[in-house]
Amino acid sequence: MDLLTADFLAREQMVKKIEGIFRLFGFSPVETPIIEFVKTLSGETSDTGKHIFYISNAGENTDESLAMRFDHTVPLARLLAANPYEPKARTGIRLPWRRMVYGPVFRGEKPQNGRYRQFYQFDADIAGTDSMLADAEIVAMMHETMKALGVENFIIKINNRKILSGLAELVGITDRGQISKDDLTKEMMRILDKIDKIGMEKVLEELVAKPEHETHASPNLSKEASLKIKEFLSIDGDNIERLARCRKVFVGVKIAEEGINELAEILENLKAIGVLETAIQINFSIARGLDYYTGPVMETTLTDASEFGSVFSGGRYNNLVSRFTGQDLPAVGASIGVDRLFAALDHLKKLDKTKETVTEAMILRLSPNQDALYLKMATELRSAGISTEICLLDDTTFKNQFNFAISKNVDFIVIAGEDEIKKGVVQVKNLKTREQEEVKKEELKDWFSK
Amino acid sequence: MDLLTADFLAREQMVKKIEGIFRLFGFSPVETPIIEFVKTLSGETSDTGKHIFYISNAGENTDESLAMRFDHTVPLARLLAANPYEPKARTGIRLPWRRMVYGPVFRGEKPQNGRYRQFYQFDADIAGTDSMLADAEIVAMMHETMKALGVENFIIKINNRKILSGLAELVGITDRGQISKDDLTKEMMRILDKIDKIGMEKVLEELVAKPEHETHASPNLSKEASLKIKEFLSIDGDNIERLARCRKVFVGVKIAEEGINELAEILENLKAIGVLETAIQINFSIARGLDYYTGPVMETTLTDASEFGSVFSGGRYNNLVSRFTGQDLPAVGASIGVDRLFAALDHLKKLDKTKETVTEAMILRLSPNQDALYLKMATELRSAGISTEICLLDDTTFKNQFNFAISKNVDFIVIAGEDEIKKGVVQVKNLKTREQEEVKKEELKDWFSK
Repeated sequence: MDLLTADFLAREQMVKKIEGIFRLFGFSPVETPIIEFVKTLSGETSDTGKHIFYISNAGENTDESLAMRFDHTVPLARLLAANPYEPKARTGIRLPWRRMVYGPVFRGEKPQNGRYRQFYQFDADIAGTDSMLADAEIVAMMHETMKALGVENFIIKINNRKILSGLAELVGITDRGQISKDDLTKEMMRILDKIDKIGMEKVLEELVAKPEHETHASPNLSKEASLKIKEFLSIDGDNIERLARCRKVFVGVKIAEEGINELAEILENLKAIGVLETAIQINFSIARGLDYYTGPVMETTLTDASEFGSVFSGGRYNNLVSRFTGQDLPAVGASIGVDRLFAALDHLKKLDKTKETVTEAMILRLSPNQDALYLKMATELRSAGISTEICLLDDTTFKNQFNFAISKNVDFIVIAGEDEIKKGVVQVKNLKTREQEEVKKEELKDWFSK
Repeated sequence: MDLLTADFLAREQMVKKIEGIFRLFGFSPVETPIIEFVKTLSGETSDTGKHIFYISNAGENTDESLAMRFDHTVPLARLLAANPYEPKARTGIRLPWRRMVYGPVFRGEKPQNGRYRQFYQFDADIAGTDSMLADAEIVAMMHETMKALGVENFIIKINNRKILSGLAELVGITDRGQISKDDLTKEMMRILDKIDKIGMEKVLEELVAKPEHETHASPNLSKEASLKIKEFLSIDGDNIERLARCRKVFVGVKIAEEGINELAEILENLKAIGVLETAIQINFSIARGLDYYTGPVMETTLTDASEFGSVFSGGRYNNLVSRFTGQDLPAVGASIGVDRLFAALDHLKKLDKTKETVTEAMILRLSPNQDALYLKMATELRSAGISTEICLLDDTTFKNQFNFAISKNVDFIVIAGEDEIKKGVVQVKNLKTREQEEVKKEELKDWFSK
């Protein structure tokens, strides 16, 4: 995807708003390279359908295979593992740590409409704490971000992986042959997560379906189990009611009770800071695709552009760094699918895509031997903070240069033909209002400063 | 290369200054993808020692081989070719066009100290005009950029490929067997360009050296020819004197005379806008590595950090788009080696690398049951535009949280323990001045706003 200027500036505005909110929440920017070692990236791609782009010539060190990052979370884990805090030297990353990152990630998929092989993600994560205050901060930041973007109607759906693990326990999922309980639970979550797309009945069908072959991680639930799931998924009411009903379903299932308590704590904190209850929805089908989530998970849909899916999603993952360090490190974060959000905001007419240039003033080059003068005027305007270009068309007729300025959508043109030069003046024309004013040459800068 | 926050913020400051100047000059931002088709990139890599990073799995369309861009100039040419201006529909890119682009490029080299496989380039180009005013604008922009970055001592060296072509004519370079005059001329330029590194004598030696084998494009000049080159390279004096002396060397060599006139025009324009003459140096050995330059070429060295080489270079290239469209399109531009410039400015102590966080205020979490209160305070400070984080250390002793805030180099800490909460106040401590003030809870936001 190429971004020409109008799109670029619209996206820049959007990204600046996001960045502003993230920084207000104390997330500090970092950057990691686009290329990582394959050994760093692999191991995190099992069920997400992500295809890594491999680099085929890594210079001479071909044994150290390289590939392109497919998200910012695995590089975050590597970064944390590579920069442990050293109290004496005061080097490394001191935890807890709030970091944000913005940049392109890559997936070797066949490109489709609205689905690119390169796309931007804007992530914010808090590493090094298991306090639910961190999770509440993430949700509050998601909320503030959507507001800053001018979106009126959105819903942040929240669930907890622990409740879904409790559900697996409740319906009696256990190891089956070569397939672990964990894998079967993940497959169950993956199916539940599709409820918005395929509906309750299809979800229940898939949950009871017989595995196609022995190694297929189909949950293969009993009819009775599927009815329990139906009951669970049918819990409704406001958020407090949902949690209360959920508690009744999971009496004695410790992991689920833990998850419910966590959600209750998050809700309480959000209430304290005035996050609109209507913007937050406890939703027990949300699982998020990624393997590594271990606690609360959340996703954001735009009510008036729900076809774009979740534009801002995240969750808690407490084990990600352990692959590098052997130690658990609790973390929670969320990620904006920037290109998807951009498309959704465009659909909602929240973007300004009218600026095809940054140029505010264009100096017409009307006299062939006055380049030095035009350059001087440009220099003056620039020193007043006005983005200025000298029209460099070969055809220097007034009409042609005027039309050029119009087509570029600049704000002002500065006219200094031979007559004006003789009189020591310039004509400044505001192309928006069509007003024209004669300004003394030496007062040009002041005029624009004003 | 990972950029942790202190480095990231220092680079961000640098890039913002560059971007500010580029925009003042009317360069509009665009973005192209990091991945291009191999067929787009190939053909421009012959003598520059650039190795392309190929992508080994491009999804299912494996016949459309993909690779990573190695600069922003080839994608610019593709972008121009793909978006011709349609006067009736008013779509496409209307020329002349000033565009800037900032982003990473990739070369499949063995990484070395200060030489990365991923590095950032910040380019500005003017396409669609052969007016020397454009070239002067580029040089003026380079000059303003260096000033904006706080660099006092720098030299922009300027030459013209046309003069070097004239030199090849003057010393009688012609086709030799399979090797074209053009290739031999380019090789001569490549050797001349090394004069700063290896000195005059070595350059002359290389120019007269016998080719190692028949297909080796060594210029193989006569002793007499090399003396002419020595005379040419020894031209000194101020810029006006250099051009005058150069004119004498090339009497009757049309291409060189053209080049000299172009440089004279650029100098005249730069003088008009007060670009310091001491910052500009006509230097006849400058050739720039890239094949595609056809006119003026320029490079910028920092006098107090010359070991970093040129940090901002460019030139005129009038044929680049023809590979895609079959038509010539004149263009001139320049490119900043961002990582190299960053290293050089760091060496010159022009960077602020002290901010390890964006957080301005840290709220200590001193009372275990007051999360809602701390969140509320954070929300208030954020609404006043203060980047705020709640300290999320597990060990919530005052001493530990205080030291944490110190180590993160935040500006303020907000203290609300049980005593303060009872009294309805908070303590705000400025960690820079060590001053502490008691503020009424309800006046916290106002205090920070002030």
